[in-house]
Amino acid sequence: MSQADIGLIGLAVMGQNLVLNMCDNGFTVAVFNRTVSKVDDFTNGPAKGFSVIGTHSIEEFVQALKRPRKIMLMVKAGQAVDAFIEKLLPHLEEGDIIIDGGNSLYKDTQRRYEELKEKNILYIGTGISGGEEGARHGPSIMPGGNEKAWEHVKDIFQSIAAKADGEPCCDWVGEGGAGHYVKMVHNGIEYGDMQLICEAYELLRNGAGCSLEELASTFDEWNKGELDSYLIEITSQILKTKNEKGVHQVDEILDVAGQKGTGKWTVINALEMGLPLTLIAEAVFARNLSSFKDERREASNAFQNIVSKPSIDKKSFSDQVKKALYASKIMSYAQGFMLFREASKEFKWHLNYGAIALMWRGGCIIRSKFLGDIKEAFDKDPNLQNLLLDDFFKHAILEAQADLREVVSKAALMGVAIPCLSSALAFFDGYRTEKLPANLLQAQRDFFGAHTYERVDKPRGEHFHFDWMGDKKEKSAKTYNA
Amino acid sequence: MSQADIGLIGLAVMGQNLVLNMCDNGFTVAVFNRTVSKVDDFTNGPAKGFSVIGTHSIEEFVQALKRPRKIMLMVKAGQAVDAFIEKLLPHLEEGDIIIDGGNSLYKDTQRRYEELKEKNILYIGTGISGGEEGARHGPSIMPGGNEKAWEHVKDIFQSIAAKADGEPCCDWVGEGGAGHYVKMVHNGIEYGDMQLICEAYELLRNGAGCSLEELASTFDEWNKGELDSYLIEITSQILKTKNEKGVHQVDEILDVAGQKGTGKWTVINALEMGLPLTLIAEAVFARNLSSFKDERREASNAFQNIVSKPSIDKKSFSDQVKKALYASKIMSYAQGFMLFREASKEFKWHLNYGAIALMWRGGCIIRSKFLGDIKEAFDKDPNLQNLLLDDFFKHAILEAQADLREVVSKAALMGVAIPCLSSALAFFDGYRTEKLPANLLQAQRDFFGAHTYERVDKPRGEHFHFDWMGDKKEKSAKTYNA
Repeated sequence: MSQADIGLIGLAVMGQNLVLNMCDNGFTVAVFNRTVSKVDDFTNGPAKGFSVIGTHSIEEFVQALKRPRKIMLMVKAGQAVDAFIEKLLPHLEEGDIIIDGGNSLYKDTQRRYEELKEKNILYIGTGISGGEEGARHGPSIMPGGNEKAWEHVKDIFQSIAAKADGEPCCDWVGEGGAGHYVKMVHNGIEYGDMQLICEAYELLRNGAGCSLEELASTFDEWNKGELDSYLIEITSQILKTKNEKGVHQVDEILDVAGQKGTGKWTVINALEMGLPLTLIAEAVFARNLSSFKDERREASNAFQNIVSKPSIDKKSFSDQVKKALYASKIMSYAQGFMLFREASKEFKWHLNYGAIALMWRGGCIIRSKFLGDIKEAFDKDPNLQNLLLDDFFKHAILEAQADLREVVSKAALMGVAIPCLSSALAFFDGYRTEKLPANLLQAQRDFFGAHTYERVDKPRGEHFHFDWMGDKKEKSAKTYNA
Repeated sequence: MSQADIGLIGLAVMGQNLVLNMCDNGFTVAVFNRTVSKVDDFTNGPAKGFSVIGTHSIEEFVQALKRPRKIMLMVKAGQAVDAFIEKLLPHLEEGDIIIDGGNSLYKDTQRRYEELKEKNILYIGTGISGGEEGARHGPSIMPGGNEKAWEHVKDIFQSIAAKADGEPCCDWVGEGGAGHYVKMVHNGIEYGDMQLICEAYELLRNGAGCSLEELASTFDEWNKGELDSYLIEITSQILKTKNEKGVHQVDEILDVAGQKGTGKWTVINALEMGLPLTLIAEAVFARNLSSFKDERREASNAFQNIVSKPSIDKKSFSDQVKKALYASKIMSYAQGFMLFREASKEFKWHLNYGAIALMWRGGCIIRSKFLGDIKEAFDKDPNLQNLLLDDFFKHAILEAQADLREVVSKAALMGVAIPCLSSALAFFDGYRTEKLPANLLQAQRDFFGAHTYERVDKPRGEHFHFDWMGDKKEKSAKTYNA
């Protein structure tokens, strides 16, 4: 009895693979599943020969665990997590640890963390990325919650995590819901990365007339440089793939994108925090727009032949698109880390930005060389205000921004929709503008609603109202009337 | 006793002005206020000589009203609305009507409507736009809630509302929270309109080097054509306005935009509904970005002199910008009415799109000639799928889209940030694209997560998974794994 290093509940593929990964790393794992027959299926099947202890009741499961007990839930996000916590509680002791490894919303994790803290149960909510393959051979792991639990699970988590440049892609993220928050933003950034690749593909295929073979080798090439990443790699593989009929499989797929909602959550959070996460927002909206398939067909008839396609040199345009993609990717990550900065302040999480970059460096869908560069930027300056102001990225932008401009400019004239690339440029140009036209906007708001404004020559926080239609005089506004 | 046609609680400026407006139109109004001394201040002050009955307790107030009682709340959105409903309820009878005229979130209105319906109290949540001036002399009024109440308040509401082309800018919107929903989207569209004007101003001032005088007359000119609207009109007035020192007041205002949150609510709702409301989203984010004043100053140093400003012919560029603004405005309203269509389906509101356009035609901040054109489009075809597919707007777009392309293209090269104008173009080009690159995106999702896809040659709703790394075969997916 009490011989398992950790227990895991929920034997779907992700859960099974994490167990086998833990065993590979020398840990003994107790397992349980709501449909109990799955336990024996697993121990007699994929887990045969592994140090797995199958248990058939919550009592038996809990008794199999060394103290403090470490119990990982790999069940469906939502109700099921709360239900299992309820079932476990009567059998646990102070200092025991519950870990939610599912795709929970960070607000739920925050709530559970607080509820369990009162009972002296240490709660961890951890993002796990990398899909089934990652779970089995090394995922990216983003744990947050009750920091007292970290020393007890650190060894297990870092052993099973992916390694990048010799370091585990797993580190402590922060208190409360921080782990699941970082996973949510990871998914949002994934939306952005994918849409950027799609726009590059669209520009080269329908703008420049490249064949799928040409595109596949272009992405192969790109994967050797600063864009080296899992998503670029699989894009090349996808573009090469022919099915049994000898047809490129990508052309058999309907252009209507699905989504699970984490991208949307990220953008809603950015809106709530007042942070301009424009690129991910456009990526989410691009998926939404794709769903209007019938309407798009109709509109394509109504608005056809309205642009003249210029002749384009494939090679030089492809180089420009590559740079544009790179510059836009920098913008997207800069926005993402701006969001982290706000969240860290708002929720008092003390996020370690470099550690986050390292966690994403390997194992997960957005893994890339690029994240190593981000890690380095925060290593150089842990308090770096913005990625764009780091020397490496500043130089990269200076080198690539002219091509981003050219691509946005050409796409506008060619009629190719590139919502994320053009949003990246608009953000960059807004960000580097000392004086935006928001003074006019504030004047409008003060004109029609007496919403007041601040002055260029007065300290921030002092508000004024001008009598635009009357005596043309300014009054100090005692209260800020937003 | 029982002689007032309607009662109003909440004597801040908006409330006071609505009362006087009702009196102007022949109605007798009972008033009450939480700070009771304000009642006498009002009846002895601004309301002197008007048919206003001041009351000093809820009991007295309720007894002053004809049946069914019509009680309008003009109090702060949130808790205060619930608190007054609680206070009123013991004094009301079945069939009495409570009207919330504040800026409530439509979800709160929906909840109150349902709670009061069970008590046979008829609840109306109404958007009111037009600021203090509008309230006094004719606002835009967007009532929704319990339709049984409409016949009892219709005459009062339509009498006090603004008139456009002889018709009142007030009509029944729909059940439950529909009125406040339409008001929320109104405010979102207002964000978009304002940001578009700011981008046009920025292009002409900092891109083309126009003076404020030149700009003021440009906006004056624009106000005579298809852009004829309140916001263009006040923009011209703002740009002309000099303060006592002889300095243009707009240049004294800090370029940091405030917001009250309704734009944000609109975008969050669009995200929840899966509707690509890109232009308003970019407008909200543009306000967010403006708040990073110190960081923008630093970035402007890091990234200065990175573009070469081409020489620009002010007159021809100004004409292009005008067309670009017009085309983008059409996109924004098209997106807004797409959102209405989804909301109408989702909440079973049976929204009358033409009636909404008419309500906005006068009295409110976004009032414009343009909204008359939208009204006409829905008069021609009440089931119009999309504004862009209406003949008038299709023609307008065909006439203006080339200029929008030119402006987006030039702004990219000049380094002027135009997030909303370029988002409008990206949306248009995406919307008119029969085959988007979302097929590649679906391939990626199926590759790394077996999320499945639909096929170009199979009915919608059938999902497939392809074994990209293995046997290169496709399997029908029984369950959709988003």
